[in-house]
Amino acid sequence: MSNSFGRLFRVTTWGESHGVGVGCVVDGCPPSLRLAPEDIQKDLDRRRPGQSRLTSSRQEADRVEILSGVFEGLTMGSPIGLLVRNQDARPSDYERLKDVYRPSHADYTQDAKYGVRNWKGGGRASARETLGRVAAGAIARKLLKDLCEVEIVGYVTRIHGLSAAVDPDGVTVEAVDASAVRCPDPETSKAMIDAIDAVRAEGDSLGGVVECVVRGIPPGWGEPVFGKLEAELAAGTLSIPAAKGFEIGSGFAGIDMKGSDHNDAFVVREGRVRTETNRSGGVQGGISNGEPIVFRVAFKPTSTVRKPQRTVNRAKEEVVVEARGRHDPCVVPRAVPIVEAMAALVLADQFLRHRGQTGRTGSAI
Amino acid sequence: MSNSFGRLFRVTTWGESHGVGVGCVVDGCPPSLRLAPEDIQKDLDRRRPGQSRLTSSRQEADRVEILSGVFEGLTMGSPIGLLVRNQDARPSDYERLKDVYRPSHADYTQDAKYGVRNWKGGGRASARETLGRVAAGAIARKLLKDLCEVEIVGYVTRIHGLSAAVDPDGVTVEAVDASAVRCPDPETSKAMIDAIDAVRAEGDSLGGVVECVVRGIPPGWGEPVFGKLEAELAAGTLSIPAAKGFEIGSGFAGIDMKGSDHNDAFVVREGRVRTETNRSGGVQGGISNGEPIVFRVAFKPTSTVRKPQRTVNRAKEEVVVEARGRHDPCVVPRAVPIVEAMAALVLADQFLRHRGQTGRTGSAI
Amino acid sequence: MSNSFGRLFRVTTWGESHGVGVGCVVDGCPPSLRLAPEDIQKDLDRRRPGQSRLTSSRQEADRVEILSGVFEGLTMGSPIGLLVRNQDARPSDYERLKDVYRPSHADYTQDAKYGVRNWKGGGRASARETLGRVAAGAIARKLLKDLCEVEIVGYVTRIHGLSAAVDPDGVTVEAVDASAVRCPDPETSKAMIDAIDAVRAEGDSLGGVVECVVRGIPPGWGEPVFGKLEAELAAGTLSIPAAKGFEIGSGFAGIDMKGSDHNDAFVVREGRVRTETNRSGGVQGGISNGEPIVFRVAFKPTSTVRKPQRTVNRAKEEVVVEARGRHDPCVVPRAVPIVEAMAALVLADQFLRHRGQTGRTGSAI
Amino acid sequence: MSNSFGRLFRVTTWGESHGVGVGCVVDGCPPSLRLAPEDIQKDLDRRRPGQSRLTSSRQEADRVEILSGVFEGLTMGSPIGLLVRNQDARPSDYERLKDVYRPSHADYTQDAKYGVRNWKGGGRASARETLGRVAAGAIARKLLKDLCEVEIVGYVTRIHGLSAAVDPDGVTVEAVDASAVRCPDPETSKAMIDAIDAVRAEGDSLGGVVECVVRGIPPGWGEPVFGKLEAELAAGTLSIPAAKGFEIGSGFAGIDMKGSDHNDAFVVREGRVRTETNRSGGVQGGISNGEPIVFRVAFKPTSTVRKPQRTVNRAKEEVVVEARGRHDPCVVPRAVPIVEAMAALVLADQFLRHRGQTGRTGSAI
Repeated sequence: MSNSFGRLFRVTTWGESHGVGVGCVVDGCPPSLRLAPEDIQKDLDRRRPGQSRLTSSRQEADRVEILSGVFEGLTMGSPIGLLVRNQDARPSDYERLKDVYRPSHADYTQDAKYGVRNWKGGGRASARETLGRVAAGAIARKLLKDLCEVEIVGYVTRIHGLSAAVDPDGVTVEAVDASAVRCPDPETSKAMIDAIDAVRAEGDSLGGVVECVVRGIPPGWGEPVFGKLEAELAAGTLSIPAAKGFEIGSGFAGIDMKGSDHNDAFVVREGRVRTETNRSGGVQGGISNGEPIVFRVAFKPTSTVRKPQRTVNRAKEEVVVEARGRHDPCVVPRAVPIVEAMAALVLADQFLRHRGQTGRTGSAI
Repeated sequence: MSNSFGRLFRVTTWGESHGVGVGCVVDGCPPSLRLAPEDIQKDLDRRRPGQSRLTSSRQEADRVEILSGVFEGLTMGSPIGLLVRNQDARPSDYERLKDVYRPSHADYTQDAKYGVRNWKGGGRASARETLGRVAAGAIARKLLKDLCEVEIVGYVTRIHGLSAAVDPDGVTVEAVDASAVRCPDPETSKAMIDAIDAVRAEGDSLGGVVECVVRGIPPGWGEPVFGKLEAELAAGTLSIPAAKGFEIGSGFAGIDMKGSDHNDAFVVREGRVRTETNRSGGVQGGISNGEPIVFRVAFKPTSTVRKPQRTVNRAKEEVVVEARGRHDPCVVPRAVPIVEAMAALVLADQFLRHRGQTGRTGSAI
Repeated sequence: MSNSFGRLFRVTTWGESHGVGVGCVVDGCPPSLRLAPEDIQKDLDRRRPGQSRLTSSRQEADRVEILSGVFEGLTMGSPIGLLVRNQDARPSDYERLKDVYRPSHADYTQDAKYGVRNWKGGGRASARETLGRVAAGAIARKLLKDLCEVEIVGYVTRIHGLSAAVDPDGVTVEAVDASAVRCPDPETSKAMIDAIDAVRAEGDSLGGVVECVVRGIPPGWGEPVFGKLEAELAAGTLSIPAAKGFEIGSGFAGIDMKGSDHNDAFVVREGRVRTETNRSGGVQGGISNGEPIVFRVAFKPTSTVRKPQRTVNRAKEEVVVEARGRHDPCVVPRAVPIVEAMAALVLADQFLRHRGQTGRTGSAI
Repeated sequence: MSNSFGRLFRVTTWGESHGVGVGCVVDGCPPSLRLAPEDIQKDLDRRRPGQSRLTSSRQEADRVEILSGVFEGLTMGSPIGLLVRNQDARPSDYERLKDVYRPSHADYTQDAKYGVRNWKGGGRASARETLGRVAAGAIARKLLKDLCEVEIVGYVTRIHGLSAAVDPDGVTVEAVDASAVRCPDPETSKAMIDAIDAVRAEGDSLGGVVECVVRGIPPGWGEPVFGKLEAELAAGTLSIPAAKGFEIGSGFAGIDMKGSDHNDAFVVREGRVRTETNRSGGVQGGISNGEPIVFRVAFKPTSTVRKPQRTVNRAKEEVVVEARGRHDPCVVPRAVPIVEAMAALVLADQFLRHRGQTGRTGSAI
């Protein structure tokens, strides 16, 4: 029952890795938004496997079909159904895994929960599920862009031991996508690519960090108490497979500062209330303060590795498993559009809630 | 509209720092649970200001009144209303702040959102709001303890630069509460107390980390996709004032490992499927795997400091502000019962959802 | 878990007939609404027992206390907690009923569901629960009045065999409240009063119909499919104790017409699109069309009667029961403010949802 | 945002009359339910146009495709995506209506709400939307049948002035479906068919009543206050296009009785608590009492009639409109499976909620 996300702008995803396809329904999208399949396809292509040698070799065109909710190029305020058919499913890769619990996958826990499990490609626990999110996120993004000029840019700041310093105020999608690992710092990008190449040769995997900046959010979005922006951004991004951590603004590192240094002094610039620093990450008391929203998500090294691993099977026998299916030695670059999508979904929803409760869009403040 | 948390076990909190009081309604608590005011009071006392010289000197007895839902000592399946009256409110402390935006507080953003603001003690953005959560969490905790023998223990592992290594498998509430900073490592505890004393003298503040372990959760709780345990734990804890980061299991540090090392090998022990290590933090694919659930929450240094700070007021004039109200130089020790409460709320809710969808409690697996 | 109603304007009620009190939390009320206790008290007084000899003699002042959410006379956008303490509870009246299932009450079903039951005055199933709804409804009503000039008037059109024809376009609250049975037709009102007096003397009870008109709703409120106005009005009013039926516009009687007669012809009047007749009851396709919204709710004769009745007890023995507690021989007049409150709650919620999704208030159309 | 129904067993529908197709996602279906396309197709076929000369001549095979959630013939606990492609859409029938507001349709209100409208066949307001409900309802029905032996039978008791008396305890789906108007009383059925034939010849339409009985529900399902069975059944059925009224048990007619006659005396039969009469319609205090649940839904005469009608267009000019598209002179027979589906959805959801909150299924009482 937890396949929906959002309250006013609400996506429900469905579909499995090796079934008919994957998709989603977006309910609550405002009317009169201009929406074409390409608006969605663009983001799906950034999430697609087979983009480069760094990603899974699974061949999926991932063409989206808009099933409903758009008429003569405009959204109607009615639910938007989206469908992407699976093409290059190879269930045979998984046949020998049907009774084996792959370490740090969802095989065992799904069995424990439901008593049954779709073992083909991880079923619902596959990262293919995120396709529906990215498709819905593209609509959310369009809404934010068209109605509020909000811009969302995600990028990789860390792969294993390699870190890049990226300026959240200036980074562009173009600069990010120019790198095969989506790290806009060319030198670090090169080192990251080498590291991933090396680990793939070993049959192993790496993790990393995606940072994401949202620019153009006016002050006032987000809600106190349980609807805080950081709480919803964390819920959205920690629901992405392999995510293990979330932080906003200064995050865990902020602990090394004292309060008087950590606080963001308010100043007036060009007639607007601004903060001199942005350790708050654009959010104070759960509500946007007009500064860029900056957060980071940690992804563990991919669980699927070619190296042999000890595990158990359904009969509770200890066995050794070796992955054969196609997979990414490092999911972090492909996680970028997924993180952006979750941010877009959270913010589009908060925009509608804010407009509903207060009658303001926030842009006039 | 975001003052509720949970789906089947659902708390709604209300109340402001300097109003009549604070409280909550817990809807969905199963019937026939034995519940006395002391079950709730116990946790409120651990959250209460004035516990030691490390905390705010505000004097609040924080006595809870059960308004409904309990009859002859038992829950009835009906909503449980809880009320705690404010006693030691000193709005005059805030009078001179009514038009000033304290740095890194919610003053400015609340104004931006609503156009109006209860300036007395931060109003709804006050940490006093968490009283309702702790009260509700105590009921959730009772449910988990009585029906499933689940135990939740939170503790401080870091204050500013000081870290403690705590064994999540063995740590007890008693050991934690024996320390004024709720760090069960006596030596580090002492150093932490000294550091807080020092910073209080300076009129400054410190942040830190609360780690929390949940023991006794059977495999199978939590839901795939958007209802993942880590997503809901993150949403719950990042909605606590001053929280800036969340991680589960290996978290951000897991990035330093390769997949083959990071994966938790499955083994069979005493006839049960277990994992040899617990980098997953007890959760795989969003669902509990029977190992202890371990997560951490980062809290920034308290925004309220006595040192003078630059800021602006409602008239957009740059001014200097100095806090006078009573406040904690470090909220981390008092955050422990709040973190525990949010974990209890998430897990009680997931227990009911799991039982509803599958007809299992998870205990039989 | 079903003690909340609404999505953006959301009320959660709590409390039992003979416990500490009853109350509610209203979450999602927009900021800057002027709200005083009298705004709420006014409606509570119209629901109160002991208004006339036609109602229960239970003496309750039903004074409301605003616990939170209002500051300096204005709503803050934060949750509004409301409390009404019980005063004239007489649990002893119910002592001898603790093991008996009163016919057509909720005694048996509550026991069947929960295994436990608060037998004092029906506990949560008491009509006293509706106090929280009326209090919340008063706030919704204030919002609708102040922001949109919407007016809600309920009245009794039928008691047992006696019917009144009331003009929904012209009827006023004053005319309604001038009648002890809330029937604005003086002659029928008198006959109804006599009928209730007679049935009270017999120790029996009567049912009836409340009609309700909502004037001033602009076209465009309500949502297609599951959020239709009639669906939500029905859900809201059929959740009132003793309600057995709901109809909108022509309702059940519309079946006697053919489509060509039943359809409401559109016309243009004073530059606005109007309908010549209003068999649709102001709602088409679930959305308001600008005409008055008119609906009716049927209430069964009160289950509590003084006449002896056959029933069974917890031990499954057949016994005879005679009511003694204080109760209304006809709840219909007191149901009027409750029906109005539910309508107000539905419409305030739909207003906020409409404003959120479309950015319009509807008033400009 | 109101295209979802249910809380634990939750359907989201999407799709328009003349778009790609219609469908739904069912989230929360328990695992291990045996489910084949035929289980769903069976109910779709009963809703399908072109079943007899009484229904619309639109030719739609309405073949359902299961997109996800079922693996090796079993549900997996994951969301079930369902798709039915439109085939016989004839948008040209509607071209000339694109700027005209058909009387008592949703044309005007959709325009008023959204500012845009899919004018092809009514778009989202078309009865074709109910296909997704019937498909989801079929799954709910399977669940209720397989896990709890619950049976749902709907039937027509009234068309215009013609009424049939049907025994809710004994009526079967077979007897109902043997009649082209789904009235299991052969004589009345014949008269109803004649009446519909006559009105079709005139280019007019008729309304009627669907009664529905649910047998086999154990005591204890449903929730007090806002989750009452009658409230949810009303919400579900009044969201069906053309529905104007709902009543449960004695409904509006119960007003003609006094309380002492109306009350259902409890008796013990075969060791179980039963009621002698069933004026409560199987529900007391919102919760099932173990008796058959009986409710009725009134449907207005179809708005689409061939006779010329006065109306206005988008330019606010008064015009005359004559329907040409294919439509039903009386929707009531085809509404039967839709009413059953909504009942199934409500009850499956309440079953899961009851099991979640109480740990009981109700069957053991």
